[in-house]
Amino acid sequence: MKRLIGYLFVAVLLLNPTILFAQKSAGTEVKQLQGPQNPRLGFVIHGGAGVISRGSLSPEREKEYRAKLEEAVLAGYKALQAGKSSLDAVEIAIRILEDSPLFNAGKGAVFTNEGKNELDASIMDGKTLGAGAVAGLTRVRNPITLARAVMEKSEHVMMVGAGAEKFAEQQKMELVDPKYFWTESRWNALQRILKEEKEKEEKSKDHGKLTEAEKPANKFGTVGAVALDKDGNLAAGTSTGGMTNKRFGRVGDAPIIGAGTYANNATCAVSATGWGEFFIRLSVARDISSLMEYRAMTVQQAADLVIKTKLQKLGGDGGVVAIDKFGNIGVSFNSEGMYRAYINAEGKPVVEIYKD
Amino acid sequence: MKRLIGYLFVAVLLLNPTILFAQKSAGTEVKQLQGPQNPRLGFVIHGGAGVISRGSLSPEREKEYRAKLEEAVLAGYKALQAGKSSLDAVEIAIRILEDSPLFNAGKGAVFTNEGKNELDASIMDGKTLGAGAVAGLTRVRNPITLARAVMEKSEHVMMVGAGAEKFAEQQKMELVDPKYFWTESRWNALQRILKEEKEKEEKSKDHGKLTEAEKPANKFGTVGAVALDKDGNLAAGTSTGGMTNKRFGRVGDAPIIGAGTYANNATCAVSATGWGEFFIRLSVARDISSLMEYRAMTVQQAADLVIKTKLQKLGGDGGVVAIDKFGNIGVSFNSEGMYRAYINAEGKPVVEIYKD
Repeated sequence: MKRLIGYLFVAVLLLNPTILFAQKSAGTEVKQLQGPQNPRLGFVIHGGAGVISRGSLSPEREKEYRAKLEEAVLAGYKALQAGKSSLDAVEIAIRILEDSPLFNAGKGAVFTNEGKNELDASIMDGKTLGAGAVAGLTRVRNPITLARAVMEKSEHVMMVGAGAEKFAEQQKMELVDPKYFWTESRWNALQRILKEEKEKEEKSKDHGKLTEAEKPANKFGTVGAVALDKDGNLAAGTSTGGMTNKRFGRVGDAPIIGAGTYANNATCAVSATGWGEFFIRLSVARDISSLMEYRAMTVQQAADLVIKTKLQKLGGDGGVVAIDKFGNIGVSFNSEGMYRAYINAEGKPVVEIYKD
Repeated sequence: MKRLIGYLFVAVLLLNPTILFAQKSAGTEVKQLQGPQNPRLGFVIHGGAGVISRGSLSPEREKEYRAKLEEAVLAGYKALQAGKSSLDAVEIAIRILEDSPLFNAGKGAVFTNEGKNELDASIMDGKTLGAGAVAGLTRVRNPITLARAVMEKSEHVMMVGAGAEKFAEQQKMELVDPKYFWTESRWNALQRILKEEKEKEEKSKDHGKLTEAEKPANKFGTVGAVALDKDGNLAAGTSTGGMTNKRFGRVGDAPIIGAGTYANNATCAVSATGWGEFFIRLSVARDISSLMEYRAMTVQQAADLVIKTKLQKLGGDGGVVAIDKFGNIGVSFNSEGMYRAYINAEGKPVVEIYKD
């Protein structure tokens, strides 16, 4: 019998090699693996992924990004320490990022082809699997707060366009003049792309290589947060201003539950950023949860498999932040950089931008 | 060594009990389990799930439904027999259902609270994981065809509202006057609900039980199709007119890749119908694919687990049709009925409406 059990044990390990190497690729962020005996409050945010190579940001600009990311991650974490829910922490941090012109969400949203700002967001509660999502907003100052209202105060999950803003009015959300979202740098970015498009059109009618400004890495951006609170509840949220020069009412992954956002207390909470079309096709956030649930992967392994193998293979780029039910953090991206911040095992904020 | 292999085999079976009972719950639809040695062309469609109990349809009405379902399933299957792709078959069958006033999609779309028809659809190619989705259309005669154009002729996956219709114009899609979608029975359904809402409001200000007309089973409806073609490629598509009396630009699961529609040649193609909010929160279509990929379930087992256990537990209702890469069919629903049709192992169409 003992022998049989031994063989079975070996067989289990052979069938689940991941168990042997659970922390192999977990990186250096979290020094201690959290488990049922030592869960902890957990909070991670991101401010978008893309071509952010060392030296491409001026020292002053980098300082601004780092300061805002630290402010947001600390605000969310302090809320958790004060006993607030993971949903509260996610909303608080994302509102700070939405209100900053630095990130492509809320105030800093990029412009569509028509020179408008259209905002999308979603939020999910890992305890109830409740979810809320909004897309195509033009007047709602904080889309993440409207997404939460859709989840908590309507029988729906997703609302889009003018209808969603009608709900926002009914819920007494803070509405702003669409001009509020105008920022010089985003406006100039649109003008650069439009100019390049025109030049390209004049130069040749056949489709050449994408110009620098057209490359998705320079066109996308998102903010997001994932949290674990004192009651063991997970939550995730994502907010975006979409894609510079977008046309045709394009919607990316940020407001798609399962693509840009997912949370389930049984597994993890995930918020994604990157080339949204690929994140939708792979159901990125949902797949990370499934790999943990059905394949017993750690949150870092699951995130790496989806981002560094599946997304990479399909030709997409971007990244995710994730957290599991014990507070273990998963961060993965295949782009040059990703604005991100988390609270480490010592309770201190860590802000990172580049690959290493 | 032999003994070790024996133990390992036992261990594998113990760890994957599903292998032992692969066809246990597969129902009676498909008499022979298809495998790599005997794959077949496969085609399944649905026309919505809900409260369709025996006797609730008049014999004439039932005949109409059966005839249209048979027409659509045969049209798709014949396309497959003629060597067309699974995407073609899905589009052909869904267009037939969209053009019929019987189903809540295209011509037969239900009315929003404001008395409009807003249409959503999505399609996915299991070979490339390419996907297209559209929502909030008011003038596109066949939303499934626009979803396919988004997939094949744009760099995007999802387009909504007026922007999506601008793309439809550019693609020379057939546009119709919004009046095209007016049908008496759908209009009367909206008026019934509005009247009940008003009476309820006058009777009492507190929220009582949902009236019959408000019950989701009577408010939702969708059409969809899944196909396996001669090249082994899977495809899935879904189209809907949304929810009677919907407000606030609500979007359900039909245009959400991973919720209402998913296809992956490695696993299966799925199209869902039902109370969309629950299907989004569970990523129903994507989860069925994941259970096959990560847990080695059959398509029927995966569909049953998601619909009869997970969806049921969360309080949602509806169903799915699915097909795997060998042509095995999965059909599961927890509502009283689901309009559905498939091609059986003898190549004959089978149309079903009720539970048994």
